[in-house]
Amino acid sequence: MGPLKLSRIITLTTDFGTKDGYAGAVKGVISSINPEAQIVDISHQVPARNILSGAFCLLNAAPFYPQGTIHVAVVDPGVGGSRRPILVQTKRYCLVGPDNGIFDLVLEKDKVSCFIHLTNLDHFLGRVSATFHGRDIFAPVAAYLSLGVKPDEFGVQIKKINKLSFPLVTKSAKKIVGEIIHIDNFGNLVSNVTWFELKQAKESKIKIKNRVIPKISTTFSDVKSGEIVAYLGSSNLLEVGVNLGNAARTLRAEVGDKIEIQL
Amino acid sequence: MGPLKLSRIITLTTDFGTKDGYAGAVKGVISSINPEAQIVDISHQVPARNILSGAFCLLNAAPFYPQGTIHVAVVDPGVGGSRRPILVQTKRYCLVGPDNGIFDLVLEKDKVSCFIHLTNLDHFLGRVSATFHGRDIFAPVAAYLSLGVKPDEFGVQIKKINKLSFPLVTKSAKKIVGEIIHIDNFGNLVSNVTWFELKQAKESKIKIKNRVIPKISTTFSDVKSGEIVAYLGSSNLLEVGVNLGNAARTLRAEVGDKIEIQL
Amino acid sequence: MGPLKLSRIITLTTDFGTKDGYAGAVKGVISSINPEAQIVDISHQVPARNILSGAFCLLNAAPFYPQGTIHVAVVDPGVGGSRRPILVQTKRYCLVGPDNGIFDLVLEKDKVSCFIHLTNLDHFLGRVSATFHGRDIFAPVAAYLSLGVKPDEFGVQIKKINKLSFPLVTKSAKKIVGEIIHIDNFGNLVSNVTWFELKQAKESKIKIKNRVIPKISTTFSDVKSGEIVAYLGSSNLLEVGVNLGNAARTLRAEVGDKIEIQL
Repeated sequence: MGPLKLSRIITLTTDFGTKDGYAGAVKGVISSINPEAQIVDISHQVPARNILSGAFCLLNAAPFYPQGTIHVAVVDPGVGGSRRPILVQTKRYCLVGPDNGIFDLVLEKDKVSCFIHLTNLDHFLGRVSATFHGRDIFAPVAAYLSLGVKPDEFGVQIKKINKLSFPLVTKSAKKIVGEIIHIDNFGNLVSNVTWFELKQAKESKIKIKNRVIPKISTTFSDVKSGEIVAYLGSSNLLEVGVNLGNAARTLRAEVGDKIEIQL
Repeated sequence: MGPLKLSRIITLTTDFGTKDGYAGAVKGVISSINPEAQIVDISHQVPARNILSGAFCLLNAAPFYPQGTIHVAVVDPGVGGSRRPILVQTKRYCLVGPDNGIFDLVLEKDKVSCFIHLTNLDHFLGRVSATFHGRDIFAPVAAYLSLGVKPDEFGVQIKKINKLSFPLVTKSAKKIVGEIIHIDNFGNLVSNVTWFELKQAKESKIKIKNRVIPKISTTFSDVKSGEIVAYLGSSNLLEVGVNLGNAARTLRAEVGDKIEIQL
Repeated sequence: MGPLKLSRIITLTTDFGTKDGYAGAVKGVISSINPEAQIVDISHQVPARNILSGAFCLLNAAPFYPQGTIHVAVVDPGVGGSRRPILVQTKRYCLVGPDNGIFDLVLEKDKVSCFIHLTNLDHFLGRVSATFHGRDIFAPVAAYLSLGVKPDEFGVQIKKINKLSFPLVTKSAKKIVGEIIHIDNFGNLVSNVTWFELKQAKESKIKIKNRVIPKISTTFSDVKSGEIVAYLGSSNLLEVGVNLGNAARTLRAEVGDKIEIQL
């Protein structure tokens, strides 16, 4: 199962919000099982039931944590149904959550040691509800992991897990066509065009929503206030923003809108 | 006063939001008095001045914390007026906040050892403002509790505290009538009909907003995408949701709407 | 550089929101460098790019933390451009963030020991992005500070830093004229009129949005439900609220609106 030593750090990435106390319950369950666990809120504000947004949030945050961190991610529209609760051990982390693709993006940056289907009731909360596995399954599993329980004690190894449906970039001799996959807190438009793909196009024009952006800049202030700017974002993806403004509002852009890079 | 040994864990449940720094001030005051305190945010997003929402948030989260946890709850529209600042010691926890019913729901699950009216200025912040007792009274009291100061050193014992005005379920031979008391982050409608009351009605029909739900299901995915579903929620209350959707929006439902269970 | 001993407490005040994982990345970077750091979220909900709001949030929260706390504040619309990344050591704290005035208000309550322009790449993240210095510069600098690295090892001393553009109060024989600088989570209107200025006007009338408030009260419940009330807020500034209501909505007030105190 690999020699990964797990730390006391347990991160949480959910779409629970905080107002209902659901996220608070998850933290209580962990503290009750391991009072020494160090719980870190990555986010409880992932848009409700949006697995891709959860995967993107995790991609932005999880890789910066120390080796041995336990990452719990719960965006779980299929809770209580046929989707499996899983644990993924990688070379660096333990990931705990539903088998619905939420770990897909972060797994591209890491190497999987094993997948476990969580089936051992001994490490769940006493009575498991049908609608809140974050509290009743994922929180206790994470807490017991942080106490040193080995991954294979939580269930049975499985060969593979479900993939996220993720939009792909298309390339031709003349252009790369991607799309907006996320709009961030500042209204910046994050595309699925990677740093690697961009390298071929360094001096080229970007087209989005019938607007042409003449080149790829370094940062917002490379253009005037209120102007549109394309740049390689901090997630290593092509982004479009507005200097001192909100690109989603200015361009009336939405997730799914196309973005073209002329080669 | 009972042998409850308090832990270093102090939870916070407030309607402060975080953008103004008020919640941050509360955490600073606690850290300054007891740098070893382990502060856990349950929520700062309780709807402003909504005591019932605060009580519900606390009900969902507080019971999952280890014995000895100090729970601070501040939804406090009467701050600085005649409402008393209180401490409630139970068999499991210490609760600190305003005497306005915010602890009512969580106290139904626990046994009270004593009520204290907080009057001892020695354990308040130097100068107590008239509008921010979260920072000036409740935070320091919680911090001193976590340092081992005994509950009765904070003030005088009182016999009873104020109750929350909570809507009651009515029952007849033919039906149970409850109402929606909370709408959660997913748009699920949480009613005041308990698991205990539901047991009499297991195969019966639910009526809400002129819609009939044929039976009580186990989880969302028991119905098709977009369909309305009734189920026993994770708070042990009857809830109405929409599979992969938002019931509050679909049904145009609000807190106070009636829900009927045909017996 | 002064004998200030820094603690393990690192607070975060940002406009990142949490849904994108940016705030989570900052916490991961800190934990990776110093697993013993005690990270406290003051806020990630400062309105996007609003430096004054960030400064006000910090003013409300930072002074309540123990001596030696490291306060990181990142509202950074000029990221990657010519604005400098800085560290301010005061008698009580270390402040880390962009040189755009965000520390101005909190510095009025503290005494500066030195300003450092952060230039030493050894204490930055391996590869510094152009758009996310919170993660790549400010987080690692704070973490290394908490490990005992001395402020002057992070860069070069500078003589002064940029000031915030802050609206001033004007006074005449007949009146004081201030303005609304912040609207809080409850819809209370926070003005720039200080406690000190108010002392001259204790029994006087307040004018705002063509409404006259007859006197300065102590707290909300000094007036009837739904009525407008002026009071000295918990930030020691004149505020206008509505008892059990939302003053911003009732008065249709905005940041920048004038407030007059008749002397």
